[in-house]
Amino acid sequence: MTGTVSLHPLIDNGVPQGSQDFNGGILVCECTDRPVKVRVDGDVAHNHACGCTKCWKPAGATFSIVAVVAHDKITVLENGDKLEVVDKSALIQRHACKGCGVHMYGPVVREHPFQGLDFIHPERFDTDGWAPPGFAAFVSSIIEAGTDPADMDAIRQRLSALGLPPFDCLSPGLMDYIATWTAKKSGVLKS
Amino acid sequence: MTGTVSLHPLIDNGVPQGSQDFNGGILVCECTDRPVKVRVDGDVAHNHACGCTKCWKPAGATFSIVAVVAHDKITVLENGDKLEVVDKSALIQRHACKGCGVHMYGPVVREHPFQGLDFIHPERFDTDGWAPPGFAAFVSSIIEAGTDPADMDAIRQRLSALGLPPFDCLSPGLMDYIATWTAKKSGVLKS
Repeated sequence: MTGTVSLHPLIDNGVPQGSQDFNGGILVCECTDRPVKVRVDGDVAHNHACGCTKCWKPAGATFSIVAVVAHDKITVLENGDKLEVVDKSALIQRHACKGCGVHMYGPVVREHPFQGLDFIHPERFDTDGWAPPGFAAFVSSIIEAGTDPADMDAIRQRLSALGLPPFDCLSPGLMDYIATWTAKKSGVLKS
Repeated sequence: MTGTVSLHPLIDNGVPQGSQDFNGGILVCECTDRPVKVRVDGDVAHNHACGCTKCWKPAGATFSIVAVVAHDKITVLENGDKLEVVDKSALIQRHACKGCGVHMYGPVVREHPFQGLDFIHPERFDTDGWAPPGFAAFVSSIIEAGTDPADMDAIRQRLSALGLPPFDCLSPGLMDYIATWTAKKSGVLKS
């Protein structure tokens, strides 16, 4: 906790450890009746805390925890009829449960450096051990959801102390990846 | 220099010192014939190195050096007929000299947290002492102009060593400022 601010219940008391043995699992929404279940084969990548206003987060959390997997690793197992896309104009096509609102998976289908990847929330896995978050993205955006700007210094310090270096866009590695894709597409760099 | 990469001739060998006595000056373009001259009253703010592909930079430089001043501190003194706006659809209305290409001032006129500010390049002042750059913005974007992605770690380290912490968007303070403006506009935070 940073003052009265919960970053996310899964990281407020320390970031969870991953396990080398984790090789995928089943994401389950919050519904007690007919929960949506989605199988993910293999571990997640680029797991991070995200401060944007569009990612799903549990009640009371300031950040989401979100990671990516290749789209072909996603299989809807049960109750897929409850899913709908939150915003069809968004880069990430977040498939949310109409019952509880949890975003189960979000593919990037348009031409983009992230095309072919799905964004998922590993806290919804029914087992532990997934690769833990490694940084915090879009940190300043939490102000847009109502965080007091005066709390930002303490929040960034808390993220850093947790081993989640804070960025106001994505991490440098991912930002370089996007810029490299753009430079190859424009012809500035060779493909 | 980072390998063979010049960050900017003004900072490759250390960031210049500012002077408490600096109280404005005259920006002069690179033309030897009929140079454009623009007076700026008072010192600049938020001076920084910028890696974006739109800011003017001198030949060979990887970053621009760019700062802001209030629009009412800008006066075109001579040869304003040589100025034209580079891209009228851009947020920053960069007024460039048609002769040499130097951007002399760039007002933000549309509704935006930076409305009322002009972006200028303090290296074009005819005197020294302006507030020095304090961070580096849009660092990953230099890849879009052709920087080898393999050079990025060394470039970020060099910027940090110069006292210019590197960010792939603006600095946290400015990003929080933008988010706060957005939150007040949407009504999430009180104005």
